[in-house]
Amino acid sequence: MSTSHKKRPRPASLDAVFRPRSIAVVGASRRRHQIGHEIVRNLVEGGFTGPVYPVNPGAKVVYSMHCHPRVSAIPGPVDLAVLVVPSRHVLAAARDCARKKVKALVVISAGFAEVGGEGAKRQAELVELCRRHGMRIVGPNCMGVLNTDETVAMNATFAATTPTPGGAAFLSQSGALGEAILADARALGVGMSQFASVGNRADVGPPELLEYWEKDPRTRMILMYLESLGDPEAFMAHARRVSRHKPVVVVKSGRTAAGARAAVSHTGSLAGSEAAIDSLFAQCGVLRVDSMKDLFMHARVAQMERMPAGRRVAIVTNAGGPAILATDACVAAGLELAELRPATARQLAKALPPEASWANPVDLIASADAARFDAALGAVVADANVDMVIAIFVSPVMIDAAAVAEVFARHSRATDKPFVACLLGKQQGQAAARTLAAAGVPNFRFPEDAAKALGGLWKMSELRHRDATPPPRFRIQRRRGREAVERALAAGRELLKGTELYELLTAYGIPVVPSRIVREPEAAVAAAEEIGWPVVLKIEAQGVSHKSDRGGVVLDLRNPDELLAAWEDLDRRFRPEAPRLQMLVQALRRDGVETFFGTTTDPQLGRLIAFGLGGIHVEVLKDVVFRLHPLLPADAWEMVEGIRGKELLHGVRGKPPVDEEQLVEMLLRLSRMLSDLPEIRELDLNPFLAGYRGVDSCVLDARVRLRRL
Amino acid sequence: MSTSHKKRPRPASLDAVFRPRSIAVVGASRRRHQIGHEIVRNLVEGGFTGPVYPVNPGAKVVYSMHCHPRVSAIPGPVDLAVLVVPSRHVLAAARDCARKKVKALVVISAGFAEVGGEGAKRQAELVELCRRHGMRIVGPNCMGVLNTDETVAMNATFAATTPTPGGAAFLSQSGALGEAILADARALGVGMSQFASVGNRADVGPPELLEYWEKDPRTRMILMYLESLGDPEAFMAHARRVSRHKPVVVVKSGRTAAGARAAVSHTGSLAGSEAAIDSLFAQCGVLRVDSMKDLFMHARVAQMERMPAGRRVAIVTNAGGPAILATDACVAAGLELAELRPATARQLAKALPPEASWANPVDLIASADAARFDAALGAVVADANVDMVIAIFVSPVMIDAAAVAEVFARHSRATDKPFVACLLGKQQGQAAARTLAAAGVPNFRFPEDAAKALGGLWKMSELRHRDATPPPRFRIQRRRGREAVERALAAGRELLKGTELYELLTAYGIPVVPSRIVREPEAAVAAAEEIGWPVVLKIEAQGVSHKSDRGGVVLDLRNPDELLAAWEDLDRRFRPEAPRLQMLVQALRRDGVETFFGTTTDPQLGRLIAFGLGGIHVEVLKDVVFRLHPLLPADAWEMVEGIRGKELLHGVRGKPPVDEEQLVEMLLRLSRMLSDLPEIRELDLNPFLAGYRGVDSCVLDARVRLRRL
Repeated sequence: MSTSHKKRPRPASLDAVFRPRSIAVVGASRRRHQIGHEIVRNLVEGGFTGPVYPVNPGAKVVYSMHCHPRVSAIPGPVDLAVLVVPSRHVLAAARDCARKKVKALVVISAGFAEVGGEGAKRQAELVELCRRHGMRIVGPNCMGVLNTDETVAMNATFAATTPTPGGAAFLSQSGALGEAILADARALGVGMSQFASVGNRADVGPPELLEYWEKDPRTRMILMYLESLGDPEAFMAHARRVSRHKPVVVVKSGRTAAGARAAVSHTGSLAGSEAAIDSLFAQCGVLRVDSMKDLFMHARVAQMERMPAGRRVAIVTNAGGPAILATDACVAAGLELAELRPATARQLAKALPPEASWANPVDLIASADAARFDAALGAVVADANVDMVIAIFVSPVMIDAAAVAEVFARHSRATDKPFVACLLGKQQGQAAARTLAAAGVPNFRFPEDAAKALGGLWKMSELRHRDATPPPRFRIQRRRGREAVERALAAGRELLKGTELYELLTAYGIPVVPSRIVREPEAAVAAAEEIGWPVVLKIEAQGVSHKSDRGGVVLDLRNPDELLAAWEDLDRRFRPEAPRLQMLVQALRRDGVETFFGTTTDPQLGRLIAFGLGGIHVEVLKDVVFRLHPLLPADAWEMVEGIRGKELLHGVRGKPPVDEEQLVEMLLRLSRMLSDLPEIRELDLNPFLAGYRGVDSCVLDARVRLRRL
Repeated sequence: MSTSHKKRPRPASLDAVFRPRSIAVVGASRRRHQIGHEIVRNLVEGGFTGPVYPVNPGAKVVYSMHCHPRVSAIPGPVDLAVLVVPSRHVLAAARDCARKKVKALVVISAGFAEVGGEGAKRQAELVELCRRHGMRIVGPNCMGVLNTDETVAMNATFAATTPTPGGAAFLSQSGALGEAILADARALGVGMSQFASVGNRADVGPPELLEYWEKDPRTRMILMYLESLGDPEAFMAHARRVSRHKPVVVVKSGRTAAGARAAVSHTGSLAGSEAAIDSLFAQCGVLRVDSMKDLFMHARVAQMERMPAGRRVAIVTNAGGPAILATDACVAAGLELAELRPATARQLAKALPPEASWANPVDLIASADAARFDAALGAVVADANVDMVIAIFVSPVMIDAAAVAEVFARHSRATDKPFVACLLGKQQGQAAARTLAAAGVPNFRFPEDAAKALGGLWKMSELRHRDATPPPRFRIQRRRGREAVERALAAGRELLKGTELYELLTAYGIPVVPSRIVREPEAAVAAAEEIGWPVVLKIEAQGVSHKSDRGGVVLDLRNPDELLAAWEDLDRRFRPEAPRLQMLVQALRRDGVETFFGTTTDPQLGRLIAFGLGGIHVEVLKDVVFRLHPLLPADAWEMVEGIRGKELLHGVRGKPPVDEEQLVEMLLRLSRMLSDLPEIRELDLNPFLAGYRGVDSCVLDARVRLRRL
């Protein structure tokens, strides 16, 4: 099975998948409702612009087309082959495709890695075969691909619904959900550019599609249903870039599995919370939403292709209750109610009856007709303090809803600001709703949804414009750090020893509290004299954990007598279980705030860096913030400012503030360390004493676990 | 306007509103699309079973009915009058109704308390007039009332939609939203028993309707849209009782206003968070949801009238992706995936193809037809480990969706367990969906919604069965406590003095740390000798706040020398700003965990009791739990167990656990104090040192602010 890498051709462009000039359907069937029939039908009825070749050795004609016995028997060239044969025939079919110089396969057939054992082996062979011939694979175990570009018009799925053309590219990791996605997209009015059900992702997955869709001019936003990220660092690298010009919105499921995953380290045991995963996505510019419904809701507002300049929303309504619901939901979604300019208020005061309210929400009261909405929206939409508009209309019996909807449509067209409508009551789904749909004004049945969707739009805008400044170039003693790691690995140890820890941290400019390891009480006194009183005495023994909780740490020893007494006590209590007991003499530092830094390697998300406050804050309150490695300075600032107890860093109860810039620098240095030393599996600096401004900070205790690469 | 209370008749039963034998519409209009016309039309077209009398001095005939010039001119008796006249005519009309012995008014007209000034005065007069004659009022400024009971068949609203009959009673505080509510209820398939738009709630509001609907046999659940609670303690008292047999689900809006409300005290500044308000509702058995959409979603499952016996959900599906989404959403909603019994697994293994999964979620894979669903549901629904079922069907091209829906309907009918369906893909809204609707099986487009709704159902069930054990009877020196309060009020003080605090707390069995207030250093030493060393010295001066942050507290003074030195230092620093400086000598207590108890009076929610950990936990981390007064023991336990840092109470880092039962007792004693002494506006015990089990606890610092009643 092995083959020289040199011979391998470059993998074909994904144009072979999404813009093929011709398609073979291998396993085409004459019987309606069979997948091998439905794909041919969808291709033909969808008006695919190239030839479709049914392939089936047992059929002469499929869907009124001549049927070929195998792909290599097709007279013309074939760019893409869709494979619908049973899994045991897939390899043979793929080989035949390779002979025919097919550029890409969409493998619908199930029975591969998802069933394990034989299936996994079969998938590995398929991947190897395709690599050898530069063929791309979508699937296996998927429901196909689709491109609504009229120059291609390809529906190579077996779905019952065809979406309307539009700007959303959609990746679904679940085949069956793809069926629902296409139906919902059509029903909810989300237009699609391309769709891919990626199944087992043997080749094409989220990173590849992010890259491809980045360049597709018809694709204006990218939507994904994911159950796992695949290669998290590749996903992140592409997402970071793409999300700067196209919104990327994701539903990531499989949370429960993530929660149940075995915790591999201190830091690891804290990662994987839902909030943590949300912020990890945000870090690479991706908006994660809770549900498929939210995904579509966000797509509906994103397809306006208007990004708000700020978070200030104006609400114009003919009814109080829905406006209050919208206000609450705006605030919950991180938006603000715009404060209208005095000139706007004056304009409204002139145009509106005295019972109306011309503060925001602007309540035109139940008697408002199209003309009153027109006057109010004219003033409000133009207001420079307004970034987004929600127009609410509850149909009272005496007002013509269609005329009001016309006014909404006109004001939406006349502005670049995001503008959404809520038609409540009986009008929903009738003439007025059709007017809004035709004008591209998103219309929501519930004001809370309108607010939530605008909140999402604002988040997309923030993600697009987030700070991308790279980290500064630190002076690092890279070789010294590597030597410390390699020494431990050479000695067959996963955990770094005290001296190696010191070397590694110091090499990366991370200050460590002065300390000495000693075996005898006299040496302890000598070490204390050298370090300076007062000192801390800690037991240092493999296998004794929770030193502090078990009284293995004695603080604030001010003279040799106190130190020797402490020695004796520790020796008496711990020697029985640790005959090779050593002790650590450490300078006592307490001017500062105990913080916590950690790194871990998450099986799903890759390498993570954590920051929090030390002591009970990390252990009991779990007040820890995670980001994916590598960190940008903006990420590091978010981490430091993102803990619940951040006020403790700002100085409370008469204490001075700590130097937050130094904490940010620590995070960036740790990220640099991870880049240089992928052998680091886990690292805990706990506590790191963050000094008040002008006072030295230092690591008080550290732990580093390596892995062999 | 004043009148003797003795003369007043009992207010009429709300049957006059919801089961009138005859209705007058005052302000009936001949012109279509006028409110005064639409109400007459809705009454007549809705088939109201009694006579409807249009009243309008300017019309002879309305809606082909003889029109009366005034109510008193109607020949037969009139139970209910709906008033649609301009606000300036309402009082005259109401007087005329009183003469006619009308029992209740529904006042649609606006222009009352909601506009302030004249309107507020007019409303007060209306209320006084109606009280005098025992007439009930719904409104003013509302959209009417409705009863779908076929023996009444009353639609006294001007809404464009009539709901289908069913078990949900709905109260809307917003008139305009009522229009949307009736439309949405119909569109989303929520059947209604009664509906009331209560407007300004001059008389009938949430407490009255809770009481009335409790007894209405057709009403099986109560839904409310609220912007404020009115009388919180009355609401709570009724809700606590009603929610034990009928679910009460509420959307409470106006959060933003709540957040912006001026913080009146330490405890007050912490109240009003959304999470706090949710738990306050839960405390009286009410499920609060985030949006109108969620309200309807919950109503759809609640109208099955099946309460789950537990939180264990089984998912039966023909597709993996939606089942994963449902699983995640179940866990997020506080549910668990059921662990199927071995017998069930065996049964499934026999019935299903080898590629199917017979762990929960039970994945029947895409080829599943009605027969396979039948076999799987038969096994799963009967499993004793399963409390609720979600059946998911994504329509693949080759399967008959209608037959699958029939199977869902059959299994739902055959069980008492909550059973919901998700039809995904193109089937949504078609024949299969109609089958489910006819069978009363809630059907959701998104699996996340199904899970969320079942989560709500489980919460309703938990709320119904929550522990109602009353507090124990404590020995209280009630008179001694009242005397302390009355002494302060008599002296014109709102804040209690040290001795009064001591009296009050001790009277209610709340332990206070031994302390003495002194003016001279010699007295301080004498006090310390009496209390026992070591002691704490604190400045005691009106107007000096943040004593601790400013260094006005010196801890751990072990002998007269240290005490006198501390005195001198405090005197030097604080005497200039507080010439009448006194000092407090207090026993030093530190074996325990600093906690925080508080009570406050919230303008919206009434009297609240708070509990948290002291120090940074309350001040910086805001880790505080609130409940409404009066507390049950179950509430108090929830408070103590509800703080984020609760592990600190259980003993961390080698510390013993604190006595939680004592904390619960403290809360119940405080609640008793509030019941006895409504003059207490705010109370802070901060810190209360919660002793480890077997060690004394005590208040270290306290503050009580009174109000005049």
